[in-house]
Amino acid sequence: MTLLNTASERTDAQSAVTVIGLGEMGFALAGAFLDGGHPTTVWNRTPERADPLVARGAERSATVRDAVATSPLVVVSVKGNATARAVLESSGDALSGRSVLNLTDGTSAEARDVAEWVRGQGAQYLHGQIMTIAPGIGGAETVVFYGGSDAVFNHFHPTLQLIGGRGTLISADPGVPALYGMAVHGTMWGALNGFLHASALLSSEGIEVKRFLDDAGPSVAALLASFPMIAEEVDRGEYATPYGALQHHRPSLEDLIRESGDRNIDVEFPGYTLGLVNKAVEAGHANDSYSRLIEHFRKQ
Amino acid sequence: MTLLNTASERTDAQSAVTVIGLGEMGFALAGAFLDGGHPTTVWNRTPERADPLVARGAERSATVRDAVATSPLVVVSVKGNATARAVLESSGDALSGRSVLNLTDGTSAEARDVAEWVRGQGAQYLHGQIMTIAPGIGGAETVVFYGGSDAVFNHFHPTLQLIGGRGTLISADPGVPALYGMAVHGTMWGALNGFLHASALLSSEGIEVKRFLDDAGPSVAALLASFPMIAEEVDRGEYATPYGALQHHRPSLEDLIRESGDRNIDVEFPGYTLGLVNKAVEAGHANDSYSRLIEHFRKQ
Ligand SMILES: NC(=O)c1ccc[n+]([C@@H]2O[C@H](COP(=O)([O-])OP(=O)(O)OC[C@H]3O[C@@H](n4cnc5c(N)ncnc54)[C@H](OP(=O)(O)O)[C@@H]3O)[C@@H](O)[C@H]2O)c1
Ligand SMILES: NC(=O)c1ccc[n+]([C@@H]2O[C@H](COP(=O)([O-])OP(=O)(O)OC[C@H]3O[C@@H](n4cnc5c(N)ncnc54)[C@H](OP(=O)(O)O)[C@@H]3O)[C@@H](O)[C@H]2O)c1
Repeated sequence: MTLLNTASERTDAQSAVTVIGLGEMGFALAGAFLDGGHPTTVWNRTPERADPLVARGAERSATVRDAVATSPLVVVSVKGNATARAVLESSGDALSGRSVLNLTDGTSAEARDVAEWVRGQGAQYLHGQIMTIAPGIGGAETVVFYGGSDAVFNHFHPTLQLIGGRGTLISADPGVPALYGMAVHGTMWGALNGFLHASALLSSEGIEVKRFLDDAGPSVAALLASFPMIAEEVDRGEYATPYGALQHHRPSLEDLIRESGDRNIDVEFPGYTLGLVNKAVEAGHANDSYSRLIEHFRKQ
Repeated sequence: MTLLNTASERTDAQSAVTVIGLGEMGFALAGAFLDGGHPTTVWNRTPERADPLVARGAERSATVRDAVATSPLVVVSVKGNATARAVLESSGDALSGRSVLNLTDGTSAEARDVAEWVRGQGAQYLHGQIMTIAPGIGGAETVVFYGGSDAVFNHFHPTLQLIGGRGTLISADPGVPALYGMAVHGTMWGALNGFLHASALLSSEGIEVKRFLDDAGPSVAALLASFPMIAEEVDRGEYATPYGALQHHRPSLEDLIRESGDRNIDVEFPGYTLGLVNKAVEAGHANDSYSRLIEHFRKQ
C-alpha cells in the first residue's frame, strides 16, 4: 500500500490529531498530518514556531490542556521523556479516554514511566521510535518501531502511515521500541567507526573510498549475512563453530594494527577489538565463534 | 559463467599449478586445482600434510626448487609474508620466467616486499587477498581481491576462477589487496562489536536477537546505504551536512549509554563513540556529518 493510497482512502473520514512539541521533528510530523488531510492542532512552548503550520491550516492552542482536549489522538515529540511527561501533566484531566502516541526518544525505563502515568489518567498509550531524521517523515520506506497498545496502533493505522510507510508494532511493551532503535543505531555506529578507520587507511594510500565501495560493496554487504547466524548463536548461548573461530581473527587484527601503525593511523579502535579477542582466547574460547564476545558486553 | 563451465571448458588444456604451503588454506586451494583438472604439484614444510592430496592425484615435491620448476604458475599460501619470501628464496633461480600468485595475508608493505624480490628474479607477481575461509574456496560468490600483474591475472583467469567466482584485479599495486581486505574486515569488526553490544541489550530484556533481526533487518541493512555518501564526503574532504549532523548523534548515544548502565551492560564501546563525537563537536564540527570523524583516525 502506498502512502498516497492510504491518504486518499481516508480523505472522507480524517480524525483530528494534536501535535505537542514543534521542534525539528514535531514540525515535520504536524506537516505530514496536515498534508494527509487531518484537522491538526498544535502546541509548542515557544508558540511562534507554529506560525508556518498555522499558515498551512493548523489550529494553534494556547494551552496543552486545550490542545489535548481537541483530538482523540495526541502526538508528543519533545526533548526527553521527563519533558514529555511534565508537558502532559499540565493537561490536567483532559487526557482521559484519549490515545497518546509518544515519539520522544529516551531509555526503555523512561518510556515506561510516561506510559504508566498516561494509563493512570485513563488514556491509552503507544510509543514510537522513529528511525529517520525529520526530512524522512512520510517516506514510504521510513521505519517506525511501535510498542504499547495494539488498539491504538490498529485504530490509527492510516494516520501512522503518514509518519512512515514501514511502521510495525513490535511489542505490547512501550519500552521495547527504544531498545530496537538503540540496537540498530549501536550497530550503525560500530560499522561507521570501522568504515571510517578503513577509509583513513585507504585514503592514506590515495585510494578513493568511493572506488573501494564500488569494487568491494558486495563484500561489505556480505558481512550482514553473518548476523542471523550470530543472532542464533547468542539466542542459543552456544558458540562452538567449525570454521572462522575467534583465534583466526587474531592474525588479521594484528595485520590491521601493524598496517595502521605504519601509516600513522589511530590503532585504538582495532586494538579494542584485538583486546576482546585475546581476552576470550585466553579464557579458553579460541575455537568459538565471534558471537562468544557477547559475554564481554554482559558485565558480571 | 559458472565454475563448472569454466572447469569443463578448460579440461583439454589445463596447465600445471604448484601450491606451496598446505595449511588449512593451501590444502583447500590444491584441492580446488585438482578438482578443476590441473596437474597439481605440492610442497609443504611438513610433507605428510600432502598425503590426502597425493591420494587425489597431486604430485609431491621434495624441495621448493623442484616444486617451482614443475609449473608455470606458483601459488603460495603460508603463515606470513616473511615466510612466503624465505620459502621462495629457497627455490634458487628456478623462479625465472614463472608467475607467482601469493595468497599469504599480511600488510601492504610486506606484500610489496615479496613482489619486489620475486620480480627481481625475473618472475611475474600477483597478490591475492582471499575474502573467505578455507571451506569457501571455489564458491561462485567467493571474493578475491587481486593486485599486481594484469598479464598474470588475465592469462590464468580460468584457474583463478577455481579459487573464487568473484575475483577482481583492483590494482597494479600488489599492496592494495591487503588494504581492501583490511577495510572490509575492519568495517565488519566494528559492525559485529556494535551488534553484539546491541544483542546484550536486547537479550537482557528477554528479546530474541533473531526476532529483532526479523523485525529490524531492513533498518540494519539500510545503514549500509549511508556508506557511499560517507565515502564521497571523505573523498571530497567536505563534511558539511544539512541533516543528521554530529550533534544529533549525541542525545542518542547518551540514551544508549544510560540504558546500558541501567542493565549492567558494558558502556566502553558506546562511550568510545560518544568520546569521538564530543571531541569533534568541541572542535567546532557540530553541524558536520559523521564522516568528519575520519580526522580522529588520521593522527596528526
Ligand atoms: N530531529 C530529528 O531528525 C529526530 C530524529 C529522530 C528522533 N527525534 C526525536 O524527536 C524528539 C524531538 O526532537 P527534535 O529534533 O524535534 O528536537 P528540537 O528541534 O531540539 O526541539 C525540541 C522540542 O522540545 C521542546 N521542549 C524542550 N524542552 C521543553 C520544556 N521544558 N517544555 C516544553 N517543551 C520543551 C522544544 O520547545 P521550544 O521550541 O519551546 O524550545 C521543541 O519543541 C526527540 O526525542 C528526538 O530525539 C528527532
Ligand atoms: N584458513 C583460512 O580460512 C584463511 C582464510 C583467509 C586467508 N588465509 C591466509 O592463508 C594463509 C595460510 O593460512 P592457513 O590458515 O592455511 O594457515 P595454517 O593452517 O596455520 O598453515 C600455515 C602454513 O604455513 C606453513 N609454514 C608456517 N611457517 C613456515 C615456515 N617457517 N616455513 C615453511 N612453511 C611454514 C605451514 O607449514 P607446516 O604444515 O609445516 O606447519 C602451513 O603450510 C595465511 O596468510 C592466512 O592468513 C587463511
